[in-house]
Amino acid sequence: MKTDLVQIFEVGPRDGLQNESHLFTLKEKIWFISSLIQAGVRNIEIGAFVRPDRVPQMADTDQLCHYFFSAPKRLGLAQAWCLVPNKSGLQRALEVGVTHFAVFTAATETFAKKNIGMTIQQSLKEFQEILRAARVVLGSKLKVRGYVSTAFGCPFEGKVAPKKVLSVIEKLAALGVDQISIGDTIGVAHPASVQALIQPALKMLDRGQIAVHFHDTRGTALANTLRSIDLGIRTIDSSAGGLGGCPYAPGAAGNLATEDLLFMLNGMGMRTGIDLDDFCKVTLKLFRKIKRPLTSRYLQTYVAQFGLE
Amino acid sequence: MKTDLVQIFEVGPRDGLQNESHLFTLKEKIWFISSLIQAGVRNIEIGAFVRPDRVPQMADTDQLCHYFFSAPKRLGLAQAWCLVPNKSGLQRALEVGVTHFAVFTAATETFAKKNIGMTIQQSLKEFQEILRAARVVLGSKLKVRGYVSTAFGCPFEGKVAPKKVLSVIEKLAALGVDQISIGDTIGVAHPASVQALIQPALKMLDRGQIAVHFHDTRGTALANTLRSIDLGIRTIDSSAGGLGGCPYAPGAAGNLATEDLLFMLNGMGMRTGIDLDDFCKVTLKLFRKIKRPLTSRYLQTYVAQFGLE
Repeated sequence: MKTDLVQIFEVGPRDGLQNESHLFTLKEKIWFISSLIQAGVRNIEIGAFVRPDRVPQMADTDQLCHYFFSAPKRLGLAQAWCLVPNKSGLQRALEVGVTHFAVFTAATETFAKKNIGMTIQQSLKEFQEILRAARVVLGSKLKVRGYVSTAFGCPFEGKVAPKKVLSVIEKLAALGVDQISIGDTIGVAHPASVQALIQPALKMLDRGQIAVHFHDTRGTALANTLRSIDLGIRTIDSSAGGLGGCPYAPGAAGNLATEDLLFMLNGMGMRTGIDLDDFCKVTLKLFRKIKRPLTSRYLQTYVAQFGLE
Repeated sequence: MKTDLVQIFEVGPRDGLQNESHLFTLKEKIWFISSLIQAGVRNIEIGAFVRPDRVPQMADTDQLCHYFFSAPKRLGLAQAWCLVPNKSGLQRALEVGVTHFAVFTAATETFAKKNIGMTIQQSLKEFQEILRAARVVLGSKLKVRGYVSTAFGCPFEGKVAPKKVLSVIEKLAALGVDQISIGDTIGVAHPASVQALIQPALKMLDRGQIAVHFHDTRGTALANTLRSIDLGIRTIDSSAGGLGGCPYAPGAAGNLATEDLLFMLNGMGMRTGIDLDDFCKVTLKLFRKIKRPLTSRYLQTYVAQFGLE
């Protein structure tokens, strides 16, 4: 892997929109995802096979997948990922042709129980069964990404020791997942805690197997990303415009904004394949429907300079 | 200098308030400055000896200085700095007992001309005369900080080469200024451009003589600060709550917020002497008068969690 290549893993259409109150139509989502791909996005999470009654924002995931997977040229060079939280999600995912699965667990028991209704151990067992079954159907086409949330802090248990996170990472890796995304769910990480976790994780896994997923709740997302890049990480999760917010502190900033990340990476001479200007135009068009201020600083300035058009 | 000590240079009462449309009363400013000092701030820029008709926000600088300098215990352990842009400012500054002077120039000619009405060379000449005269009166009590604005980009001339900035730094240093604050006036710096400028600057000056002054216009202020700290810089300019905005892109974020900086530094185990919680309470009380959203991410989350009280 060349050191100046960075993979941006765009989570706006899933992690982002799932935490926005505005409901987008299927047509709007297809436009959003297609436009991000046209701007150069190569890895994008487009939906989640969760219960439509519980997460109405993701209710059209099956149709969205059908649209993209039934005619592969619609995705161009991009990989579209979906969250498959359990066995009932597995069935739906396979039916509509999903090959890139994301599974979701946590570093803290309380969060796992409240968020996915399972202990960490139960979730790992569930993933094992999902992946075993999916491999039978998809063979080597199956790609799996495992999220470890609350990796730095938990809204219920407070500070989280790296040891705890590393143990979950180790077990996920043993299941054969291709990539593990280390998530600062509540945005409490800082460069020192990033280093304290990423350094030992890099002794367990290849850097291509690790992604970081920062929230900007306390302003440190980009600084944490910089430290991760310094340490060798080359896959960064981010969300168009900072879509998503923070469910644990409504009104606070959520996901790291892809635009801010791109501005920094471009400046550092790192290549992502994404055109920042094209990307901004897509996000701005989407944000016109969302009744809250933009959280991406870069986009705020873009609007101040060029207006909303 | 111990490596885990970081000096925060608080610019909220000057650089911050000067760029806010709301006018604060003398009493409110005294409260604001005194409260920041009580929260542990040790270096604070409190005013500017500019023309009151041009910058009404700074019109009470003389009275403010009189209040603090006529009874030194009001400042406690803090150093209060004032901007002294020219000879007419010098007279006023000396009359009210200012000992810590800030002078202001730029790395680009167009910005210098439009902002201070002088060429860079003229401004350096002016500073030389100001400092010579001030030294006669104050002797070794005189401390001087020189700002070099547009050090990474200029609203009129675009990208700025490190060579240009280093030349201004060298000339300022030759005048005997104690500290030079390198300013990213329009917020276009990123970690690579920070490194490209700070590394050679550190060959010319001791790290204690260099401060960095980042604006968060494109989201990179804290990442740039992290890179500066990595390189050895230990003096960081920031503004309470992110006060100040960006005069070149109204609506965009301005100065790096002190709260976000403190959160990161605390996490990294660096000592500043400032209590983050006390600091937040002061900023929030001030922000109730300002009719724009908070830009500090940390404060946004603080409000989301604890409310405005």
